[in-house]
Amino acid sequence: MPKIDLNCDLGESYGAFSVGMDSEVIPLITSANVACGWHGGDPVVMNRTVELCRRFGTGVGAHPSYPDLMGFGRRDMNLSPEEVRMYVRYQVGALSAFCRAQGVLLRHVKPHGALYNAMARTYELAQAVCLGVRDCGEDLILMALAGSQAVRAARDTGLRVAQEVFADRAYEEDGSLVSRRKPGAMIKDPAEAAARVVRMVTEGRVCAVTGREIEIEAHSVCVHGDSPEALAFVQSIREALVARGITLAPLCEVV
Amino acid sequence: MPKIDLNCDLGESYGAFSVGMDSEVIPLITSANVACGWHGGDPVVMNRTVELCRRFGTGVGAHPSYPDLMGFGRRDMNLSPEEVRMYVRYQVGALSAFCRAQGVLLRHVKPHGALYNAMARTYELAQAVCLGVRDCGEDLILMALAGSQAVRAARDTGLRVAQEVFADRAYEEDGSLVSRRKPGAMIKDPAEAAARVVRMVTEGRVCAVTGREIEIEAHSVCVHGDSPEALAFVQSIREALVARGITLAPLCEVV
Amino acid sequence: MPKIDLNCDLGESYGAFSVGMDSEVIPLITSANVACGWHGGDPVVMNRTVELCRRFGTGVGAHPSYPDLMGFGRRDMNLSPEEVRMYVRYQVGALSAFCRAQGVLLRHVKPHGALYNAMARTYELAQAVCLGVRDCGEDLILMALAGSQAVRAARDTGLRVAQEVFADRAYEEDGSLVSRRKPGAMIKDPAEAAARVVRMVTEGRVCAVTGREIEIEAHSVCVHGDSPEALAFVQSIREALVARGITLAPLCEVV
Amino acid sequence: MPKIDLNCDLGESYGAFSVGMDSEVIPLITSANVACGWHGGDPVVMNRTVELCRRFGTGVGAHPSYPDLMGFGRRDMNLSPEEVRMYVRYQVGALSAFCRAQGVLLRHVKPHGALYNAMARTYELAQAVCLGVRDCGEDLILMALAGSQAVRAARDTGLRVAQEVFADRAYEEDGSLVSRRKPGAMIKDPAEAAARVVRMVTEGRVCAVTGREIEIEAHSVCVHGDSPEALAFVQSIREALVARGITLAPLCEVV
Repeated sequence: MPKIDLNCDLGESYGAFSVGMDSEVIPLITSANVACGWHGGDPVVMNRTVELCRRFGTGVGAHPSYPDLMGFGRRDMNLSPEEVRMYVRYQVGALSAFCRAQGVLLRHVKPHGALYNAMARTYELAQAVCLGVRDCGEDLILMALAGSQAVRAARDTGLRVAQEVFADRAYEEDGSLVSRRKPGAMIKDPAEAAARVVRMVTEGRVCAVTGREIEIEAHSVCVHGDSPEALAFVQSIREALVARGITLAPLCEVV
Repeated sequence: MPKIDLNCDLGESYGAFSVGMDSEVIPLITSANVACGWHGGDPVVMNRTVELCRRFGTGVGAHPSYPDLMGFGRRDMNLSPEEVRMYVRYQVGALSAFCRAQGVLLRHVKPHGALYNAMARTYELAQAVCLGVRDCGEDLILMALAGSQAVRAARDTGLRVAQEVFADRAYEEDGSLVSRRKPGAMIKDPAEAAARVVRMVTEGRVCAVTGREIEIEAHSVCVHGDSPEALAFVQSIREALVARGITLAPLCEVV
Repeated sequence: MPKIDLNCDLGESYGAFSVGMDSEVIPLITSANVACGWHGGDPVVMNRTVELCRRFGTGVGAHPSYPDLMGFGRRDMNLSPEEVRMYVRYQVGALSAFCRAQGVLLRHVKPHGALYNAMARTYELAQAVCLGVRDCGEDLILMALAGSQAVRAARDTGLRVAQEVFADRAYEEDGSLVSRRKPGAMIKDPAEAAARVVRMVTEGRVCAVTGREIEIEAHSVCVHGDSPEALAFVQSIREALVARGITLAPLCEVV
Repeated sequence: MPKIDLNCDLGESYGAFSVGMDSEVIPLITSANVACGWHGGDPVVMNRTVELCRRFGTGVGAHPSYPDLMGFGRRDMNLSPEEVRMYVRYQVGALSAFCRAQGVLLRHVKPHGALYNAMARTYELAQAVCLGVRDCGEDLILMALAGSQAVRAARDTGLRVAQEVFADRAYEEDGSLVSRRKPGAMIKDPAEAAARVVRMVTEGRVCAVTGREIEIEAHSVCVHGDSPEALAFVQSIREALVARGITLAPLCEVV
């Protein structure tokens, strides 16, 4: 029976700065990517977020970032592989302590923003991230863009890898995401988004923005929880998947 | 046979800012308090420091701080107990990942600067620190000012505690350190410093600045490694202790 | 004819973290306290905020803070007077550049959060702030808690001072604000709040939480702009003041 | 009579992190590039540095950076032109306040590290920096790599520009610096370095690493002040220049 994980970036509030509807979205998803303080998520927020995940049985992952709070981790930085490895290690280690204290296992690591995108494109950078993840636990799953360099690097490093797909984004023929600056980059209709995910999960295929069919492997679908509309979108994706006989399952059961 | 641990604050360099003679002092001590990024110590430095400790068999401890890089963690901040607990958890967790990656055990936690001083004075704050430490491992040893509120809080929390003494500082009658702003605060003569430590270890007593004898329990002596003079001081303390038949031993064997 | 200034803390968004309804509240007030990057307000936000003020003719002031983004500047820090002076100078100088670039004058400085409260209580700290303000311009107005140590320090430093009152807060007999943790600290009814402000402006008196009348001088009323309710409160205060014949005027015309 | 300015990056200490021999090098140079807090240089350090410059009559310039304290501003960041403009404005504005308070004029702006290199290569980025500089004063001089895109952008923006050359670095044929990773990148012999500078100043030519002569305009020579060796280098460059009849002059007299 086909299975898929639903993941969402969470715990990105910072001090008095509050973002995301974490308590609403956590019950709807199977994996939470929890910010580790470098683009969002101070330690008090980290604790609260992991506690929410524990209460709802949502799998906890670390969501490490470039050191760029002012840019929310969305801006490329030219770091050395050693710096990247150590920065990942630091942030994953910090989140691990919150998991330990809450009595939950840290399941996966999904890099954030510009780091996520850079490791999808660049093998050397992806390898540095993977080493940083493996330093924190051989059983950790790397969550990375389906079909990207990051997937390859994870396998080479001996890490399990969850291939991530996007319900609300169009794909180029090479499996990369269509830039948000281009027309047609976003899939706004929840029914269409759900149908695309269903096909990715059951057939391993999706229609690229050019119209051509491409192959794609889908272990987890990225959803958002930062607005009531986003929540409604998650809800409708969930229902569509379940209606088609797809089971929502924690990452460790999918990979 | 009397034993004592020698500890030093280390790994406080940050990016291009280099402080401390870490590679010189690490072979001379038995416990290293490694900065965790909040007053010094970026992740690359943390890795290098833990690696040095591993190579010389020096016990590794975390050295968490208030979030105050600009003030090197030396300025009091009025944080809530929950904030303190989570900040300690975050930093100790981060350092744990470097220990794990280097294959060494994290042995102890010694709070830094203003946080160290505040927890010596204030039970509630000390308790918050102790909870943060225990969250990261029930076997971790808290290193704290001998005879202070922090020692009491650690015991109440169920943590083992290492009572720390200062070779180069004078004591008030209540066991607190004489403020550096007062005359006679510093013991500059290594022979006198060593003699004081020997008495603390063997007799459990030291002469306060007032001339009165006070009781003091000594598990670890704090030394410094930020200058050639400091290194010479450590060397002479080591020799004096050994000459008097005191064994230098890792913290876990002393406590 | 009695005059009063309405001021609000603004420009506190930071990167992707968005707070406050700045574009809605700026047209309603006469003075904006613009965050300078240390508790909120990155440079892009600072520019946008000063531009909005220029467009609506709202007076621009700097809103410097302790260096504590994680605590939103709300936590006490034990800084030296020299540090405080230089930190104020830095932040006011930075905001000055945005005023210059937008062709508006920087009118006033209102310290933020814990710094504001500390300088209301402590003359030495207030003096350090005042020196930092004066370093940036002899004509700058310090906005400070009515009747506080900060007012005295400003006068001693030769700065003009705007005494600030709170429409929605109760007062102790000594003119300090009733702690938010105590019952009766907040005045929630806009009509009552407006009536209190009218009395402060026209009679120089307000009823303390104990029931006793105290004297108070009011140059500016602090309002909030972080929610639709806050905006409605501002609107009703404005109307009540105007209905009672009080003119809303920029700070430089009131002081 | 040929003139040249000697400039050095200064004021890069940060809190307890001390770098540079500022008080030794300031008397030897004619322009100081003062760090503005983003890669080094906290407000207390900024004040101390500007005060030293005032005492020795050394021209003060701002030395703004990418927001990357952990990387000392040496790592490329992919910022938008608007972000760059506002970040420059912020930092130059902050330093301006220290100049004002010390009664000295801010003379120039020299971007730091990765920002300096990026604007030498990329016109659009250089333009953003120039706009940020001009926002802070139409009379400010931009100091930039001789012959680079930054020089062109400064002219297009209407800024005066000081073309900077390096005594201790080899040049490629296109006027860019030979990467430090390549052999022959550094000129270590002070006599040779001085001779090269003399030729640049008097003939407008220098021999590239390939052996070919290239044209170069030199208004200012970059020197270093972070070690006794660096100081000796500055001293010998100074003497060689003076011996050849070249006057050391403040930037505003050279450009």
